[in-house]
Amino acid sequence: MTLPTDTLFELDEDVPKKSAKKAAKKTSRRKDTSAGAARDISVAEFFEKNRHMLGFDSPTKAILMAVKEAVDNALDACEEAGILPELRVELTQTGERVFRVAVEDNGPGIPDTQIGKIFGKLLYGSKFHKLSQSRGQQGIGISAAGMYGKLTTGKPVRILSKTRRGKAVEAILSIDTLRNKPEEHSREVVAWEGKKHGTRVEIEMEALYKKGQRSVDMYLKQTAIANPHLTLTYVDPTGAQVVYERASREKPPQTAEIKPHPHGVELGRLISMLKETSCRSLSGFLQEEFCRVGPTVAKKIVAAAGKGLSLKSYPTRIAREEAASLHKAIAATRISSPPTDCIAPIGAELLLKGLKKELEADFYVTATRPPAVYRGNPFQIEVGIAYGKPGGVGLEVTETGRIRKKAKVDATQDLVAAADEPARLLRFANRVPLLYQQAGCAITKSVTQTNWRSYGLSQPGGGLPVAPMAIMVHIASVWVPFTSESKEALASYPEIIKEIKLGLQECGRKLGTHIRKGKRLKREYDKREYIETYIPHIGIALQEILDLTAKERDETVATLEDVLHRSRKF
Amino acid sequence: MTLPTDTLFELDEDVPKKSAKKAAKKTSRRKDTSAGAARDISVAEFFEKNRHMLGFDSPTKAILMAVKEAVDNALDACEEAGILPELRVELTQTGERVFRVAVEDNGPGIPDTQIGKIFGKLLYGSKFHKLSQSRGQQGIGISAAGMYGKLTTGKPVRILSKTRRGKAVEAILSIDTLRNKPEEHSREVVAWEGKKHGTRVEIEMEALYKKGQRSVDMYLKQTAIANPHLTLTYVDPTGAQVVYERASREKPPQTAEIKPHPHGVELGRLISMLKETSCRSLSGFLQEEFCRVGPTVAKKIVAAAGKGLSLKSYPTRIAREEAASLHKAIAATRISSPPTDCIAPIGAELLLKGLKKELEADFYVTATRPPAVYRGNPFQIEVGIAYGKPGGVGLEVTETGRIRKKAKVDATQDLVAAADEPARLLRFANRVPLLYQQAGCAITKSVTQTNWRSYGLSQPGGGLPVAPMAIMVHIASVWVPFTSESKEALASYPEIIKEIKLGLQECGRKLGTHIRKGKRLKREYDKREYIETYIPHIGIALQEILDLTAKERDETVATLEDVLHRSRKF
Repeated sequence: MTLPTDTLFELDEDVPKKSAKKAAKKTSRRKDTSAGAARDISVAEFFEKNRHMLGFDSPTKAILMAVKEAVDNALDACEEAGILPELRVELTQTGERVFRVAVEDNGPGIPDTQIGKIFGKLLYGSKFHKLSQSRGQQGIGISAAGMYGKLTTGKPVRILSKTRRGKAVEAILSIDTLRNKPEEHSREVVAWEGKKHGTRVEIEMEALYKKGQRSVDMYLKQTAIANPHLTLTYVDPTGAQVVYERASREKPPQTAEIKPHPHGVELGRLISMLKETSCRSLSGFLQEEFCRVGPTVAKKIVAAAGKGLSLKSYPTRIAREEAASLHKAIAATRISSPPTDCIAPIGAELLLKGLKKELEADFYVTATRPPAVYRGNPFQIEVGIAYGKPGGVGLEVTETGRIRKKAKVDATQDLVAAADEPARLLRFANRVPLLYQQAGCAITKSVTQTNWRSYGLSQPGGGLPVAPMAIMVHIASVWVPFTSESKEALASYPEIIKEIKLGLQECGRKLGTHIRKGKRLKREYDKREYIETYIPHIGIALQEILDLTAKERDETVATLEDVLHRSRKF
Repeated sequence: MTLPTDTLFELDEDVPKKSAKKAAKKTSRRKDTSAGAARDISVAEFFEKNRHMLGFDSPTKAILMAVKEAVDNALDACEEAGILPELRVELTQTGERVFRVAVEDNGPGIPDTQIGKIFGKLLYGSKFHKLSQSRGQQGIGISAAGMYGKLTTGKPVRILSKTRRGKAVEAILSIDTLRNKPEEHSREVVAWEGKKHGTRVEIEMEALYKKGQRSVDMYLKQTAIANPHLTLTYVDPTGAQVVYERASREKPPQTAEIKPHPHGVELGRLISMLKETSCRSLSGFLQEEFCRVGPTVAKKIVAAAGKGLSLKSYPTRIAREEAASLHKAIAATRISSPPTDCIAPIGAELLLKGLKKELEADFYVTATRPPAVYRGNPFQIEVGIAYGKPGGVGLEVTETGRIRKKAKVDATQDLVAAADEPARLLRFANRVPLLYQQAGCAITKSVTQTNWRSYGLSQPGGGLPVAPMAIMVHIASVWVPFTSESKEALASYPEIIKEIKLGLQECGRKLGTHIRKGKRLKREYDKREYIETYIPHIGIALQEILDLTAKERDETVATLEDVLHRSRKF
């Protein structure tokens, strides 16, 4: 509760003598670090030291974070401008453990005056102060990636940007960490051949490039699943190029920005809003600053509040006690749920398309839950399940009604788990894949708390179900509650967990039906395979007993097999 | 990569007609949220909206976080001033779902000029800019608790503080969230009867009080384990009072502040340090700004760097390319490990004392690892295990050599797990208990990655071992890498995980020996109980066969039992 004060205290007597000299030294040190030494911490300094909070805690992860932040921004910009996004991601090794991450988009470009702050200042942006669905929301990401690049290589960020009306501008800049301000090294107008508009950012950083479940490759693949309208070209450090073609030219619906919902506003926030508003009456304040409040609701609230408050009360003059009554009155008043046109889910159909495009499986099911609300923020959950490859159940019924084993497929780099592995969990928030911190995420919690045994799957130790399966969960919201600035896991709000579970159950029930069919198939297949092994022997026996010709024998065998297969009922 | 620009883009043609009006509305909205609307985000605003990052995501957790931040600060202050800490924690319910958290210490008190910023400004403090072991390190905690109080109740924080020389001061203040600045409501000199020095802070907040594994009660109990020199009085909301008396008057050793180790400094950081230093020669810079660099090492580094650098080079004039060579030269030079007198572990003996005082078990073992280094920061790991209650193995050998069952003890509120539960994990960082985010913590990872089967425990699904056991892990470091501002989980640095595992293995081996003995006991107990059931029958049979008197029979039975027990070997 207290900070050290200037040498007000001598060291106690019980310091061993031999360390007396050392102790004296420590006392003088303590002077330096006394309360007088307490000082401001720049937010950039804070995050440079705590860069693992931003996701930059290992060279493998750093490269992914940089790609992710740049791609998030690019997609947000394209969507806000109504442009069908075309992205290019290039990773180039420029030294030992040093890579250049370049991300280029066909977005609207960034106005000159904004470039510096957007790439060279933490906590700066357009998305934090509004409630609307976007990938970025903190004003940290891309500047943090640049800061990490500078920290590890000493090199600044290169930005190339062109708006439709302006000329292409190249800016070389970095962040002044101690002051959290952009430091511009150069800026000039350049030619950008063949580019109408767009932005390209290049960051050089210490990094490691690896394949695997949490690699850049996998991140981009999953991005393609969640953004069926995106065309993305990816050049990996070996020079290999992958193109994810868009599955649909349908852009995500434009989402509206919303005002906060009265039921989600805390008393302290209400007091600040009353103080900061430009409205000159309480009635106007309630209707202007919140969603779902019209004249009738405003009247009801004010009447319920009492304390001498009227529709004409001057907002900035309302004291804490009155505000507390107002807050209670708001909570007690029925107000319709926030509008939901501020949320754009992927949609069950497109989700299915996306899953089928990138995941090979036997069975797919998706569910989109109706929108719900946590802490006044609307959100919507989508769930998809792909089941039954690689190598797993792997039985199928042919067109002629036969059951056969499917060819095994290489399971490496696959998004569907092998049969004896826990199901793969694909987590998405506002169409962004979340690859790290699975253990600490509300989505994981929801999946492990779901009873998968009742759908015919095994679930050892109350963990993830073990099955050849991928479970995809997407949350779309005007404000996604991430557990940290690295935006890798959802905080466990009960409303969110409830919705995810309902979505999982919806998909689970359909999966259960499929699995029971599969298990029946498997049982029949085993029996049949056993019998079929003996049919030729039966044929030979019959031939001997009934004295058949070879042709008659084969016909009999064929008839037997046929009867056997037709006896199967679906 | 780009922000929306001012209406440079019309909506595309494929907007359905019926929503044309809506679209127009959205276009105008988009105007408001265009690049022009990008702006600074105050760090207080950021964390108010993301308060779950600070740990304030539920009313139950909020009350714990407030107590934790206040207790952390109080203990840090006492230790830095060399005072044996005496704390008082009071929780009082002041309304429906509203509690007042009050924490009072006997620390050195806070100088007048500092009170405002310490309680009313995020990212302000004395601990961030130095490398030394302390509970607080971010300059966020206590102000954040106050911010949450204001957010939920609208009420400011009350601080009472008295330094040895000054008079007691009462300050009522809150944080101005939009500007991240203290807003002082009042300040006056008051009388504080019977208090020589100390600080008391009171925060009123919306909260819920619950008992259980992650309650304030449990936090304080664990704090007492990790701080055997602390006396703590706790008054819970029902008025019940618990006093944790200190187990030792021995204060934790004073720890020194250290300079960064050259091997832990990134290129970008080196460049900033060169730019900011007041040293006028490269040689001086290397020796002044880093630990473990003397004239010889400095010479070696500069010689290895080449690029025209000399011991007399002027630091602020060293360019990026030269700095890069210098950085490489540092990495290539052998430099001794950082000093470790900057770390104060609890110590195996005191840890054992602490465990025995608060945990009832059959078997205790502790281990203190030697100090190690991650990212240039020294740290040290301690592990303790308490095994074999409640109700679990529960067999003991009496003084006469007999085996008997122990009385069962109530397992509620106990820190040791029941026999069929996963072991309880008690995590500590710089003597602070970590109660939340267990799943995302490097300590948990280390425990689950340890093979407990080889010590005779079951470990289903590769999770925590299932046993009547508590595992305690403590990390002491000059900089603890928490995964988020709420300081609930450690980031997974490989060096840290390795050390924790080694500590667990050291304890595990000793536990294994104990368990094998216990299992032998159990086997023998089962056999004996079986035999003893029949001894009376054997007596009766012998009596009949040998025609014994009742007395002779009883003597024979007693002798038989005696032989049976003496035949046991330890």
